[in-house]
Amino acid sequence: MSSSPLKIAIAGLGTVGGGTVELLAGHADLLAARTGRRLELVAAAALERPAGLPLDGVPFYTDAREMTRDADYDVLIELIGGANGIALDVVRAALERGKHVVTANKAMIAHHGVELARLAELTGANIGFEASVGGGIPVIKALREGLAANRVTKVMGILNGTCNFILSTMQETGREFADVLAEAQALGYAEADPTFDIDGIDTAHKLAILASLAFGMPVSIDAVTCEGIRHVSALDIRYAAELGYRIKLLGVASLSEINGELATDCRVYPAMVPLGFPLAHVDGPFNAVVTEGDFVGRTVLEGRGAGAHPTASAVVADLIDLACGRVGPAFGLPVDRLEPRPTAPRGAGRAAWYIRLMVRDEPGVFADIAAALRDEKVSMEQVIQRGRAPNQTVPVVMTVHETDEAAMLRAVARINGIASVAEPPRLIRIEPL
Amino acid sequence: MSSSPLKIAIAGLGTVGGGTVELLAGHADLLAARTGRRLELVAAAALERPAGLPLDGVPFYTDAREMTRDADYDVLIELIGGANGIALDVVRAALERGKHVVTANKAMIAHHGVELARLAELTGANIGFEASVGGGIPVIKALREGLAANRVTKVMGILNGTCNFILSTMQETGREFADVLAEAQALGYAEADPTFDIDGIDTAHKLAILASLAFGMPVSIDAVTCEGIRHVSALDIRYAAELGYRIKLLGVASLSEINGELATDCRVYPAMVPLGFPLAHVDGPFNAVVTEGDFVGRTVLEGRGAGAHPTASAVVADLIDLACGRVGPAFGLPVDRLEPRPTAPRGAGRAAWYIRLMVRDEPGVFADIAAALRDEKVSMEQVIQRGRAPNQTVPVVMTVHETDEAAMLRAVARINGIASVAEPPRLIRIEPL
Repeated sequence: MSSSPLKIAIAGLGTVGGGTVELLAGHADLLAARTGRRLELVAAAALERPAGLPLDGVPFYTDAREMTRDADYDVLIELIGGANGIALDVVRAALERGKHVVTANKAMIAHHGVELARLAELTGANIGFEASVGGGIPVIKALREGLAANRVTKVMGILNGTCNFILSTMQETGREFADVLAEAQALGYAEADPTFDIDGIDTAHKLAILASLAFGMPVSIDAVTCEGIRHVSALDIRYAAELGYRIKLLGVASLSEINGELATDCRVYPAMVPLGFPLAHVDGPFNAVVTEGDFVGRTVLEGRGAGAHPTASAVVADLIDLACGRVGPAFGLPVDRLEPRPTAPRGAGRAAWYIRLMVRDEPGVFADIAAALRDEKVSMEQVIQRGRAPNQTVPVVMTVHETDEAAMLRAVARINGIASVAEPPRLIRIEPL
Repeated sequence: MSSSPLKIAIAGLGTVGGGTVELLAGHADLLAARTGRRLELVAAAALERPAGLPLDGVPFYTDAREMTRDADYDVLIELIGGANGIALDVVRAALERGKHVVTANKAMIAHHGVELARLAELTGANIGFEASVGGGIPVIKALREGLAANRVTKVMGILNGTCNFILSTMQETGREFADVLAEAQALGYAEADPTFDIDGIDTAHKLAILASLAFGMPVSIDAVTCEGIRHVSALDIRYAAELGYRIKLLGVASLSEINGELATDCRVYPAMVPLGFPLAHVDGPFNAVVTEGDFVGRTVLEGRGAGAHPTASAVVADLIDLACGRVGPAFGLPVDRLEPRPTAPRGAGRAAWYIRLMVRDEPGVFADIAAALRDEKVSMEQVIQRGRAPNQTVPVVMTVHETDEAAMLRAVARINGIASVAEPPRLIRIEPL
């Protein structure tokens, strides 16, 4: 083992950057014992020098680009964030200099991962992004190394702590989405502009990264379809509980043979998760990832998905691997060996569904709805309609057995055209156990 | 990356050996893509050549020692089992020749891990034992690498699939231990001599390995105290459910300061696990490991803990790391840097408890029991005593708040001496959430 220190430059001293600096200072001896080297912070960049961090004697830059270009370091830690802009500039610049990169930036990896991995291969550098998915859970390493003997057919998870906090709170309190979101913003659990989280974009970035590692394909955000949680209502959450489900925002990527070819299906959506499924009880700020491999079967990895300290744990795990020389291609395979996979056509899948209708309680309505389902060969499992309220609007909730997605969408379109159906039907996928 | 094949010799072609041979043959191209090398089986040893395995053209030995000594290989896979005997002989011999070793042998690693790691360091070989704990779950890698930035204070888990199957079945069916064990034996889920599993010895081996990795100390089976599941009764399982618990066989290792010194407490015991705790819902053949690190917080890793294919997944993960040169000290630190830790003295811990008494329903009994608890400052939480049955023996169940273990044991000893207490009290630890 080399006994020279690993020289580290850090760009970005926000929440995760601060946690990383604390970890490097607080566990300096532990890290030296585990790697045989000192992990030495030699430069730090942020717009302003933050108070309260152990940065004495560390050269400080207000221009991360300048630090990246001029400082003498082995690894750049990029914690600025954003798919493009300064973050991308400094990562490219570091890799071009042959310097290693460690980042928590899922947006950048999802959008530019292939380019960056190729650049790293060219210059003999390595790029680690354990912190980009699942906070402190070592899920990237598990997919890239621990489960690498398997052909993985499915990877899915609860990947966004903000959405999971909102949905868990709605579940516990019975309150509506907008109300709980406002509270989450006040508490600092959700951003002032919560779009990235609640519209599922953050989950989509993370899912694109997991799918690339799981299926050995180039990372591509374009392959992911995305539905967020804005439309999840307290009413649906109550019905979910009554039917034995929890509503969770999932990212789900699967690989299956369609017309003789392996195709991927990568989607983010709020799902009905059966209580017996490992993700049903993952609440609040926790994340979890379920992987299905042909030899290992199902594995579940769970832990804190965000926050200064858990994310710092993942950043430093990448540093430890670099310090120990445990390195390899960013996505588990050299870029040229990553196999692009076609995307399964929309509607090609099968699923069971929850459908909530708001209908005017008039004679004959239910016959029209049932006929629309029957004509598309959609088989009902359960129906809940409570009491009578003649000529008022009442909820009718159905679950249907696994069926072709295309047929389900046609049936719902037809139901939406029935005069007594007062709102667009609410369709939520039911996950298999 | 080297393009020479990784030459593999395998000793032992039972369940896991067979699964490993199948994986190497079935995923040969996948493994070559992921490592840049062919993983080539060049020798196999077993008492008899098994039918049905893809071993055509692979030189076969009936003497594993002979193969280990004479064959030309890079890695020996040891799947014979047993702490000593042939398994230990061939592993020592391979390491002495500077050959890498991959093994699923928890008994051998728990008893001889330090010696073997030292030998590997001397000859420049590596030893991988991912398959020794948690079947296909990449838990060794998670502790050694993924969570290596943390000071780990606790690692615990459900580590034996046989016990978990028996306890899950008792829970589901209400049947007694002996009855369910007999069924598990008939189904092949339990050995004809089930001692290693049901007396907790297998769990103790695995816990010793996890504790070594988590706390950076030399692996030592002597540090683990061990209580199995023979005495778990259908009655206790029923009361557990009523009180909101599941009874699970746990291995629990913790590191805490006792008299100014970090001491470990490593124990295997059947515990009352609260329904809200991540291990409560890990049923049947599944294993799970919970780790608490100072930065990452709590993580949970779950998956199939045994069986040909999951275990083969872990064996081959170690081969992939070797093929890619991702190697390091067996226990995460060079042997000389592992720090021996004192063992917490018996009775030093604190816990909440479940106590079941069988008492003759006579006036004054309960006053004597309550006095014994009060005198040791043990504070009762709940009591369940149903109906009356004058002068017959009835169960009395209590739970008590967290208390000193020594005081609890003294109180129980005194209760055991009360004339109306008809059987030794049954004491089961309640895990904190």
